[in-house]
Amino acid sequence: MSLVRFGVSLEKDLLKRFDMHCRQNAYSNRSEAIRDMIREIIVEEEWTGSNAAVTGVISLVYDHHKRELVDKLLNIQHDHQRIIVASQHIHLDHDNCLEVIVVKGSSKDVQGLAAELRATKGVKHGELVRTTTGKDM
Amino acid sequence: MSLVRFGVSLEKDLLKRFDMHCRQNAYSNRSEAIRDMIREIIVEEEWTGSNAAVTGVISLVYDHHKRELVDKLLNIQHDHQRIIVASQHIHLDHDNCLEVIVVKGSSKDVQGLAAELRATKGVKHGELVRTTTGKDM
Amino acid sequence: MSLVRFGVSLEKDLLKRFDMHCRQNAYSNRSEAIRDMIREIIVEEEWTGSNAAVTGVISLVYDHHKRELVDKLLNIQHDHQRIIVASQHIHLDHDNCLEVIVVKGSSKDVQGLAAELRATKGVKHGELVRTTTGKDM
Amino acid sequence: MSLVRFGVSLEKDLLKRFDMHCRQNAYSNRSEAIRDMIREIIVEEEWTGSNAAVTGVISLVYDHHKRELVDKLLNIQHDHQRIIVASQHIHLDHDNCLEVIVVKGSSKDVQGLAAELRATKGVKHGELVRTTTGKDM
Repeated sequence: MSLVRFGVSLEKDLLKRFDMHCRQNAYSNRSEAIRDMIREIIVEEEWTGSNAAVTGVISLVYDHHKRELVDKLLNIQHDHQRIIVASQHIHLDHDNCLEVIVVKGSSKDVQGLAAELRATKGVKHGELVRTTTGKDM
Repeated sequence: MSLVRFGVSLEKDLLKRFDMHCRQNAYSNRSEAIRDMIREIIVEEEWTGSNAAVTGVISLVYDHHKRELVDKLLNIQHDHQRIIVASQHIHLDHDNCLEVIVVKGSSKDVQGLAAELRATKGVKHGELVRTTTGKDM
Repeated sequence: MSLVRFGVSLEKDLLKRFDMHCRQNAYSNRSEAIRDMIREIIVEEEWTGSNAAVTGVISLVYDHHKRELVDKLLNIQHDHQRIIVASQHIHLDHDNCLEVIVVKGSSKDVQGLAAELRATKGVKHGELVRTTTGKDM
Repeated sequence: MSLVRFGVSLEKDLLKRFDMHCRQNAYSNRSEAIRDMIREIIVEEEWTGSNAAVTGVISLVYDHHKRELVDKLLNIQHDHQRIIVASQHIHLDHDNCLEVIVVKGSSKDVQGLAAELRATKGVKHGELVRTTTGKDM
């Protein structure tokens, strides 16, 4: 990937504090830290515009003894099979499971699926990570 | 799991709005919605107190062509093998990978590992989902 | 305001943890804590639906020596005079000012005004607090 | 304030997306957008390190008819008079008040005061804006 170089001007005091931030977070140089800030903003914007293709990770913690819960979660996932890439299941203890579902699609579809899974009775905790397909980044 | 019943008193107008919230989010009854709110708060508190055992999911997006990046990420993970439960790798496209790592440990250790992976040069985006072991929930 | 009473059922372990949360946050009883959780959710929902009337507080930190900045900020505020209730100005030090602007209107209008003020060149930091008119709460 | 200039190198595709971000947010040039990202991070870091002096704004919505609430809120504020700079009171409607309190002190003290006011029975909604003294920014 070709690199482009450009100049940035900053107030002296602000630059001093930025350099401290770079050191504390083990960035090898300023460009690296600036790249990270820019990517963070771009990922946020991808998720706000509902048409861009995004990648997300849905995590669900639930008790697999709950009647019909496993079936319900599976049915919902099959209804959205088109946007589900893969899923992984962890046995946390005798009762509790963690399911991690990787999804790829429009942010609207992905958020809809996450909300539906999370609202299913018996799911103790559900979260959606907003990440990126990595394209043009 | 045995259920306990207790009474709650709410201002009439506030209850009306709460019922609307329950309907809009497809909760079958008020107890279900209240349970979800309580769990949300408890998960937050588990992550703030740095000694409780928590479950988390770390997601990383990176370009596997970057020199030595894959090795570095593997080395970091092996150094923290004790708190890593499992990981899953997705080929997003020709260049980009998504790695999803399930972790279990003190919130301090888990956050430390996530920060280290995220700061590695070449990682385009890293996120940490804060979830729960499901115990006593 | 008339109070309504209803019953809630919770898993025994979850209730134990909720009671601990109530104690740690000095709630005099469970109803009080549940009321707070419900209000938090309702405020969030008011801000998502863009038509409801909301109350907000915009904070701006800037250097009043920057050329024409004070005039620009005043002009923007007068253009949105209809949704601005009051503002307060604090002299933080020789150079820096904090301006706190109370706004009331649709969440869309309020967020638009906050974005415009924050983007003005010379504003060092701008934030928007999302709160409520207090009606039916 | 003297400006310092330095070079940044970015992947071509990332720069293209960053320029789009600058245009959409009406930044006059890249330096301006980068300055804003850096300040955002520094403010966050000031609030995490509990010893730095920070500026904050606490907003409270409450019903002034609640017995003894106004007195309680005043008493709490006088106990923390040292970190309170000024406050402003808005009559939202016949029952509801919005109080906006500007505070300056260590982030720990400021967060403690905000928590105490928010937990007071009768307060419908309380928020804390994390902003900055503007020094060296």
